[in-house]
Amino acid sequence: MYPWQKNVRKVDPYVPGEQPKTLDVTKLNTNENPYPPAPGVAEALKTMDADLFRRYPDPDASILVDALAKTYHVKKEQVFVGVGSDDVIAMSFMTFFNSDQPVLFPDVTYAFYKVWAEMLQIPYETPALDENFRIRAEDYKKPNGGIIFPNPNAPTSIYEPLSFVEDIVKANPDSVVIVDEAYIDFGGTSALSLIDKYDNLLVVQTYSKSRSMAGMRIGFCIGNEALIAALNAVKNSYNSYTMSEAALTLGAAALADEAYFKETTGKIVRTREEAKKRLTELDFTFLPPMANFIFASHKTVAAKELFEALRAEGIFVRYFDKPRINNYLRITIGTPEQMEKLYTFLKKYVG
Amino acid sequence: MYPWQKNVRKVDPYVPGEQPKTLDVTKLNTNENPYPPAPGVAEALKTMDADLFRRYPDPDASILVDALAKTYHVKKEQVFVGVGSDDVIAMSFMTFFNSDQPVLFPDVTYAFYKVWAEMLQIPYETPALDENFRIRAEDYKKPNGGIIFPNPNAPTSIYEPLSFVEDIVKANPDSVVIVDEAYIDFGGTSALSLIDKYDNLLVVQTYSKSRSMAGMRIGFCIGNEALIAALNAVKNSYNSYTMSEAALTLGAAALADEAYFKETTGKIVRTREEAKKRLTELDFTFLPPMANFIFASHKTVAAKELFEALRAEGIFVRYFDKPRINNYLRITIGTPEQMEKLYTFLKKYVG
Repeated sequence: MYPWQKNVRKVDPYVPGEQPKTLDVTKLNTNENPYPPAPGVAEALKTMDADLFRRYPDPDASILVDALAKTYHVKKEQVFVGVGSDDVIAMSFMTFFNSDQPVLFPDVTYAFYKVWAEMLQIPYETPALDENFRIRAEDYKKPNGGIIFPNPNAPTSIYEPLSFVEDIVKANPDSVVIVDEAYIDFGGTSALSLIDKYDNLLVVQTYSKSRSMAGMRIGFCIGNEALIAALNAVKNSYNSYTMSEAALTLGAAALADEAYFKETTGKIVRTREEAKKRLTELDFTFLPPMANFIFASHKTVAAKELFEALRAEGIFVRYFDKPRINNYLRITIGTPEQMEKLYTFLKKYVG
Repeated sequence: MYPWQKNVRKVDPYVPGEQPKTLDVTKLNTNENPYPPAPGVAEALKTMDADLFRRYPDPDASILVDALAKTYHVKKEQVFVGVGSDDVIAMSFMTFFNSDQPVLFPDVTYAFYKVWAEMLQIPYETPALDENFRIRAEDYKKPNGGIIFPNPNAPTSIYEPLSFVEDIVKANPDSVVIVDEAYIDFGGTSALSLIDKYDNLLVVQTYSKSRSMAGMRIGFCIGNEALIAALNAVKNSYNSYTMSEAALTLGAAALADEAYFKETTGKIVRTREEAKKRLTELDFTFLPPMANFIFASHKTVAAKELFEALRAEGIFVRYFDKPRINNYLRITIGTPEQMEKLYTFLKKYVG
């Protein structure tokens, strides 16, 4: 114990999914996209001028913000960007959740919400999902300091329709309601259509899943101009230059190819629908999935045992040893070839 | 006023130096390096595989951390990396400065220290620099919750010798002492030689100045293993993946070419020494500079007037309209050609 350690912040850090350095695994554990980024990204990379790096990037991130505004048909003043959606959401907690009332998010959801609330000393409550792992809208209609939930939810993959989201946003004009749409592009309908109607709605999305760019660390959110101005003020008090020149340029390039985006997200959706059939044949049950993963439980074999057996075989999936969900595996949808490897092994193991 | 705005964090944001979008200016306002990054960076960029971006980057940032450890002859457990030194220092404030005692930093220094302290609700005091703009060591020998100062200091460019730094570190075993060495590679001696002797010393450096990579957002710090472990725990509670694949790869590549690093920092030092002569001939006085900028005041013409006249001519320097320093210009050392433009205009204007 060093004397200065008495003033060190105590944290219970989030443990990210394993990132094996070898490529010799079937990696279905971190909800990455199995397809490469849009071809325009590789082209933009090839023509990038390293000499530009000597200058600070544009603190307004204009190239990227403008491209997002154009893609999502909003004003550039309605767009905020960050170092992955984790940065965008952490900054949003810091900006919007400064109340004595608790912030609300589900008991079973993205694990980082709790970590941020604790680190930033924000009071919070975690209303329980119902017995079918669905969010109960009535739990979000009481005094609160803010609301956040993913749609589709993680790690359940369950999607709620736009009317459900609107109901919660409408009931909370005094709070900022953050809808974390990391997985929205795999079949859901975004709440973006509601942002002009509700000044308290912030919609967060990411490049890490549907845009195949987890490695470049790009997230964004879209909402009322006053929300975005508040976020930018806090961000500029923390780090004026969060987005590198490379992230700005490649992030803008990724948006240009709408056809590729539709093609690859469509392939993942089709692979998921096939996976539902195949896993059912193998005696798995699962929550209705609308993300690029399935949250599945086997009728007889324990999830933890399956997780370890798969891992020994070089097939990585995610297992959370937590109340309510400790008999489920979160299986990322890979390529059809990767999924066949999974089915083949499971057939041998559980069949 | 929207109802949710009552819970928005109030901040007084830092205003970064102007980043004109046109290249048609002589940009001596943000202490960027006038030379491109090491040639190995362009090569690494050319061979980078965009397909890799679909995966999350290594959360341990191993490639970059290992390269830094090798370059600075320390263990990898002694190195922490972030999105520019701003991210590294903000994270350090969050990690180490959790005391009821005030954190101490000079009244005239990097403007962000105050911004971070206020945003994170950390009490602070700002002992005044002496009449020659030097830090008084005795001001840092009283009860405190942490200490930070840049060496050389910003925006004065004044450097204090290693014995001065050691005196403060030694006097404060109960506090973490952060030495912000953003400008150390332009003639100073780093305090890195002291980290094994003092467990409370954290030395922060950046790629933005001497490594010509402001655009890629890479900063790092080196210190005792317990300091670095505490930083990583907080960082992993905030954003596990702060460093993009591109930053990791290009940051490691930048370190390989020690000869280029010495050559370009040497050129900047020589240009600075020439600038001291030329500015003296033009009736400027300045504090003894040891960074890649000079903090200069003219004997008869007001700094604000000069700042505006230079700007009209397309020559950008930095002016701070703040007590004690509002008759100074912070002039970044550019190429000899850029500096000639500056001298030529100043000769006409003040001569």
